[in-house]
Amino acid sequence: MPRYALKIEYHGAPFRGWQRQHDHPSVQATIEAALRRLDPSIDKITAAGRTDAGVHATAQVAHVNMSREWDPFRLGEAVNHHMRPAPVAIIGVAPVSDEFHARFSALGRHYVFRLVARRAPITLEAGLVWQVRKPLDSAAMQEGADRLLGHHDFTTFRSTMCQADSPFKTLDRLTITEVPHATGIEYRFDVRARSFLHNQVRSFVGTLERVGRGHWTPDDVTAALKARDRAACGPVCPPYGLYLAHVEYPEDPFART
Amino acid sequence: MPRYALKIEYHGAPFRGWQRQHDHPSVQATIEAALRRLDPSIDKITAAGRTDAGVHATAQVAHVNMSREWDPFRLGEAVNHHMRPAPVAIIGVAPVSDEFHARFSALGRHYVFRLVARRAPITLEAGLVWQVRKPLDSAAMQEGADRLLGHHDFTTFRSTMCQADSPFKTLDRLTITEVPHATGIEYRFDVRARSFLHNQVRSFVGTLERVGRGHWTPDDVTAALKARDRAACGPVCPPYGLYLAHVEYPEDPFART
Repeated sequence: MPRYALKIEYHGAPFRGWQRQHDHPSVQATIEAALRRLDPSIDKITAAGRTDAGVHATAQVAHVNMSREWDPFRLGEAVNHHMRPAPVAIIGVAPVSDEFHARFSALGRHYVFRLVARRAPITLEAGLVWQVRKPLDSAAMQEGADRLLGHHDFTTFRSTMCQADSPFKTLDRLTITEVPHATGIEYRFDVRARSFLHNQVRSFVGTLERVGRGHWTPDDVTAALKARDRAACGPVCPPYGLYLAHVEYPEDPFART
Repeated sequence: MPRYALKIEYHGAPFRGWQRQHDHPSVQATIEAALRRLDPSIDKITAAGRTDAGVHATAQVAHVNMSREWDPFRLGEAVNHHMRPAPVAIIGVAPVSDEFHARFSALGRHYVFRLVARRAPITLEAGLVWQVRKPLDSAAMQEGADRLLGHHDFTTFRSTMCQADSPFKTLDRLTITEVPHATGIEYRFDVRARSFLHNQVRSFVGTLERVGRGHWTPDDVTAALKARDRAACGPVCPPYGLYLAHVEYPEDPFART
């Protein structure tokens, strides 16, 4: 059966996350329902990252097996048509071999977290950023972030609901950049690893925000990591500042699209 | 009575425009209601630009007379508190003299219009940009825009509901810039004049989009302007790509805040 990789953008707010669930809207079920309008034989689609409730994506990747060949552009157009008005869009489609697996072929996931510090409430970007009221110390946050880089037992930064077999992961990048923002300061977290534990990025950001406001020191981050105890984690930050921004494969299936 | 200038940001979607109306939510009424919680003597506030239903602002300016003096920072905080959860925020407060009038003292208004061309539906920026499906010819749009610069009778680009005494205005700037956009092309219109007629910016953008897609030539824009006839205008584009971005005064009241 012809297999296609889909690059997907979505606003997380109306969904109980990526994964199909009984009685709750999900991104997966929204896309599958649209695909079934084109091809009733569709079973299910598989994504690179099962984003949580409220988390956004600018470039999630999934794959689907169709019962016949499709022109990639027309397939994307047709799925988008049937998903309206849900805030989900197929922004790329590429034919891939049967060896391509959106989840297991991925070499890395890149998440972005948008944190804005300003006094006045967020209006235009409501639901797109996490707001705090006071400016944060980026240098301290970066020093704390650096303590998390590398291969570690990340039990502290993992939801108790996490289903991964092992708490060990390798964090390749965690950089915090101050981005110009009209009426405040935006701190943009770029986080990359081969794969992540459940709630890992939001546990990092919630903990580093503590460092940024001076309640924790970078040494406290090291101590939390070493504790390997979920109770040692800072507060998990809200989902609506988080974006699945890129999935890396040995060969980018969308390079030619 | 002490007078304060307010710099205001809002998301236009839930409002029937700036101006207070019977039975419809407005930005003005939202702010006035919050101010009356602090000072029941407040009569009304006056804004630099009475934005239409659905139009956003990143820096609207209004003034208000209070019955006593306020610390500017605390006044902004208190108004923001009482406006929650409406998507309106006071982002600056400055004491001004009795001569300052948000509308009549203004030397210029600057609007931004965000137009995005891409095939896939807009998800994350839904309600924040106007989407068209195909790339546009920026150079042709700019050539058409240049025909509108200067002092003209803008009857063609004025709503039939416009209450201004004269159809003459001086357009100082109308530039179109291609801005990087993740999965499409964003055309950002920067429009500046001392003041505008009702629906003037949206009439410009709707007309220039016709030029960008090749349905009109820049000469057609000149002909439409010269016709001084509302029927000669291109379609008025939707409000949700439009932002009141700056109001210019002889002296910026917020310069020290």
